[in-house]
This record gives sequence, structure tokens and C-alpha cells, in this order.
Amino acid sequence: MHVTDDGPQSDDALDVVAIGSAIVDVLSHADDGDLERLGLVKGSMALVDLSRAATVYGGMGPATEMSGGSAANTAVGVAALGGRAGYIGKLADDELGDVFLHDIRAVGVVMGRNERVRADHDAERATGRCLVLVTGEGERTMATHLGVASTLGPDDLDEDLVARARVVYLEGYLWDLGPAKDALRRAIEVAHASDALVALSVSDPFCVQRHRAEFLELLRDDVDVLFANEEEAVLLFAAAGFDQAVAATEETGVLGALTRGPLGSVVVTASGPLQVPAEPVPQVVDTTGAGDLYAAGFLHGLTSGRDPEACARLGGICAAEVISHMGARPQADLRTLAAQLAER
Amino acid sequence: MHVTDDGPQSDDALDVVAIGSAIVDVLSHADDGDLERLGLVKGSMALVDLSRAATVYGGMGPATEMSGGSAANTAVGVAALGGRAGYIGKLADDELGDVFLHDIRAVGVVMGRNERVRADHDAERATGRCLVLVTGEGERTMATHLGVASTLGPDDLDEDLVARARVVYLEGYLWDLGPAKDALRRAIEVAHASDALVALSVSDPFCVQRHRAEFLELLRDDVDVLFANEEEAVLLFAAAGFDQAVAATEETGVLGALTRGPLGSVVVTASGPLQVPAEPVPQVVDTTGAGDLYAAGFLHGLTSGRDPEACARLGGICAAEVISHMGARPQADLRTLAAQLAER
Repeated sequence: MHVTDDGPQSDDALDVVAIGSAIVDVLSHADDGDLERLGLVKGSMALVDLSRAATVYGGMGPATEMSGGSAANTAVGVAALGGRAGYIGKLADDELGDVFLHDIRAVGVVMGRNERVRADHDAERATGRCLVLVTGEGERTMATHLGVASTLGPDDLDEDLVARARVVYLEGYLWDLGPAKDALRRAIEVAHASDALVALSVSDPFCVQRHRAEFLELLRDDVDVLFANEEEAVLLFAAAGFDQAVAATEETGVLGALTRGPLGSVVVTASGPLQVPAEPVPQVVDTTGAGDLYAAGFLHGLTSGRDPEACARLGGICAAEVISHMGARPQADLRTLAAQLAER
Repeated sequence: MHVTDDGPQSDDALDVVAIGSAIVDVLSHADDGDLERLGLVKGSMALVDLSRAATVYGGMGPATEMSGGSAANTAVGVAALGGRAGYIGKLADDELGDVFLHDIRAVGVVMGRNERVRADHDAERATGRCLVLVTGEGERTMATHLGVASTLGPDDLDEDLVARARVVYLEGYLWDLGPAKDALRRAIEVAHASDALVALSVSDPFCVQRHRAEFLELLRDDVDVLFANEEEAVLLFAAAGFDQAVAATEETGVLGALTRGPLGSVVVTASGPLQVPAEPVPQVVDTTGAGDLYAAGFLHGLTSGRDPEACARLGGICAAEVISHMGARPQADLRTLAAQLAER
């Protein structure tokens, strides 16, 4: 059941074009004992090779497969809100690649020109997958086997798609990959040439530790909008605490959206920081995708001309929706939720 | 990430060995307009070829992949209740085959010896999938592409596994497939030789229409336990109404479990029919797997020595759990639910 690579194309402007590792999530409930037995650090994202992925998968309970990938979740969120979104990521010509392509197209995201890698079952040439173990209060622990997503390089960058973007959104995880970094630098050039904003999510505390110097350099010259959670922001700026991280963000001059889970978020603008409360959530089921959907709401707000506070509120609404169920893609109608915000 | 075919094996007796089409479900919410646009008959299960499956999939919204397959759902339910279950079904050596194998093993079901078919992406040689469109009140409409499940034949019948069963459970859908029918007849012989009970689910009203004569013949000589819903039972016996279908079931002399959705079920025993109310369900989300899980609870009750009424109640509890969420496999701890029944 092949899904072709020829999606609907046009030359219209796109609100957000996201670039990231194309991944299908494999979600399962687990307990702390499972994590210990499998040698996983609770709350973290670990990159694993094929054999380690097989071991972790073998130790997981019955699972559900759902499309994921951090930046892809954001692109889907933007489209679900009624925005025009594009996505660039690398897939293999296998069943999970079909699943990813179907799901992202089904919400209207325009996929970049993408030469799917000929798949080889039982080899690295497969579509990437993220084994997600969801424990107690919805916390997720992830073991990611990137597969062909690890080979994303400059040749995979659909520059025409990037040039149509008003915001180019980059996933920090990609800085782990040599060829991807070259693609991202080129994407930044294209964005600047077309006066688009460049947004960066630093993705994960460990990712920040690995690429701190590069991220700080990007903030100086290349990035206009920064997404980080509290822990990531503190690590990024080697701050003594969150307030100091906010001040450091202000000094960079970028628009900063710093998230704090149930405490809401702080938007750092030229006129100072702004605290925005979180959207209440009756029951947190699975926090996978919380940051990705916050970014979707924020960027949709930004590209539809809302003020920073409204952007942060919209981000909070999208994050609240996605943590209320299993999986990192929205299930409720985000447009309706966004409209309710406008009426408040 | 290959899942090997060498599961844990032993020579212990198994409560239930189920035989059916091994399928991964692809679930998506839909509305009546979607069904009409895609030419699907609400509430039905249609067998579709690869190209038709691609068309339906292309018209579906973002989806979730979860292991399914009618008889496999029943085997998983039995295992989730603490019973010993086995399963025989045909898989390809592809990613969905890995998913199916992982999920069924993760709950402790013993898979029959199974030569996985070398997969060919974009060809019929792929693991079967069922496109499930869930509308409004949890009703599901299915388009199934059987893939290699359609090639199940006598060579795939692990007779050693069948011989370990106390109940051999057969999926009526298999009567659509020539070679599978031969495998089923052989399975019935093996079951009789080892004094096991043979249980038959007639699967679907259209399936009953296609194989009515054969099913009636099976009831005469080969089948000990019959599972059918009201509509299927009426069609099977060409009855004027449900009461007449109950009487006709009684005449066959089999143990009949006739389900009626929210009206509960009627167990037909040698001492007459017994009405058992349904388990209340706060919200019906997706009825996929309701009959399969009813059969799981009923058969687990039967193999653990409960009386027919308790079997039907346990069936109702399992059905209620599975229709409370998306997907045809249990999510809650069925053993705990079953224990609560014992305390009432």
C-alpha cells in the first residue's frame, strides 16, 4: 500500500516550514521497574542503535504506533490550527514511512521533495522510530532509533519549500547529525534571503549539553525565536536559576518562549518578560509532544499576527490538549479550541 | 528491528488456541460523509485489494496503528485475563509483522510455528491490515486488506500447538479463504482427537450470508461452542427473530453465546437459554473488538470452570473495557476487572 511522494504542491507562502527527524512513535505504558530493567533514564531521550532498539522493544508491553518526530508534531499542530505548514524529513520506503507520510499529509502539511531511501528490513535503512515508555503521571522516557532519519543532509533540503516559509523551524536534535547540520545552515541562509524568521527548539536537556556552544552562536546571529523549557534554558545559559536564564534570553535579543510545564510559560520580548499561566489539564496522560505542540500554538499565533501573550496562551492550549491523551499529535479539533481562546 | 519467530515454547496445556487472520488495525476517526465519499457501508467489514486499500487509506485522516485480527484479539484477551493462550496466523517479514508479533507475545500468547512470508512492499506479500473508520457513537466500518493472511493454509497449522488446546477457537472470516478452510478442518480433527472443545465465531453478518450452509453443517458435527451476535444468529438460522434464533441454537445442542450489544447476551445451554445483562459503559468510544473480547472473557470463564452465567458476565466485562477506548486490544488490567466480578 504505497503512499507516493507526490503530494499537492503549490507556490503559496507557508506559515511554518519545520525541519526534523521523521519518526514513528511506538508508545506503551510502563512502570519504573520496566525502565530500570531496560536501563533507561526516566524522562530522557536516548539515541539507540538497531540492536539496542530491538532489546528495548522486546521488553516493552503491547504498543501503539503513531506518527511522531518533534518538528513534525509542530508542523502538524500548525496545520491543525488552520495554518499553512510544510515539513522536511527523511523516510525509508517501508511501511512506517508510509504511515508517517499518510498521517502528516492527512492534516494538510506539505511535504518537501523527499527521495525515500530503499528500505532494508533488519538494517539501518528503515524509517526512524521512537520507543516511548509512558510511566505513572504521563512522564515519557524515549529510546530513539533514527534509521534513515540520521542520513538527512543538504541534498534532502527542499530549498523551494524553505523559501516559501514565513518561519523556518529547526529541531535541536538535528545538531547531533553531521550532514543535517550542513542542511540546517543552508536552510538558515535561505530563510534569511527571503526575510523569514528562524525558530530553534533546543529539544532536550542532554541535547543542550551536547551543543551548547553552537546553540549560543546561533542565537547571536541566526535565530529569531527560541523555544526551551526551564531546564534547557538554565543549561543553555549556564544560569544559576530560571530568572537568570530569562535575563540571559533577553540579552540575546531573540523572542524567547520558555516553558515551565504546569507553571505555564514566560515570553521574553524586547519589552521584557511576560508570565503566561498554563492551560489547566484535568488529567495528564502522556507528556510526549507537549513542547512540540506549545511551539505549534505559539508559531501559529505569531504568523496570524497575535501578540506574544496570545501566542503563549495558544501554545499552552495546544500543549494541554496533547498531554491529555497518548501520542504526540493532536486528537481534538485545535481550531475550535483556539476559537474559544479568542472569545475569552 | 527484527522480532524473531522463536517464542517461548513448552508442552504445557493451553486454555485456548485461536486461529485467524493476523492483522494490524489502522484506526482513524471519521464521519458519515467520509464513509460515503469512500464508498464504505457503515458497520460492515469489506475485503479490499491493495489498490482499493490505498485509496481508502489515502482518504482517511491521521491514524493510529494497533495490532488486531479477530481471533488474535480473543487470544490476547484470554492471556490478559491470566489464561494460557496460543495463536496461529500468517505474517509477512515486514514492519507490521514485527508489530503484530511483538504485541501478541508481550501479553504472553504463544505463537504457533510460523514461516513468515518474505515481504514485498507495494505487493500482496505484506502483513494484513484493517482500515478502521470509527464514526460518532463508536461504530466501526472496516476495509481489510488481508495481504499474506490470505495465504494461511494447512502447512501453517502448527498441529502441536493445536493439540495442546482445551478449546480451539476458529474465526469465521477464515471460511472466505480456500486453503484456510483445509487448515481449519484439520484443526478440528486434531481438537477432537485430543478431546478439546471447538469454538466458532461467525464473525460478521455478511460472512454468515456467504457461508451459512457450511456453518450449519459445522454446528451439526464439529462445533461445541458458538459465538454470534443477534443479527448473525438470525441470519444463520434464517430465523424470524431473535427468540427463534435462540430456539434454533438450542436445537443444535451446542453451547451458544449470543450477544446483543447493550442488551447483554443470551447463553444457550442444555437446560435452556439464560439472559445476562451487559456491563454498563460510561462512554462507547470504539466498538472494534467487542465480540472478540466477549469471546475471550467467556472462554476464560469456561476454561476456569465457571458456570455459563459467570462466563457471559466475564465476556460482558471484557467487551465493556474494549469499547471504552480506541483499538481492539484491552488496555485496562482485565485480571483486576475479573476479580472484581468474583467479589460481587
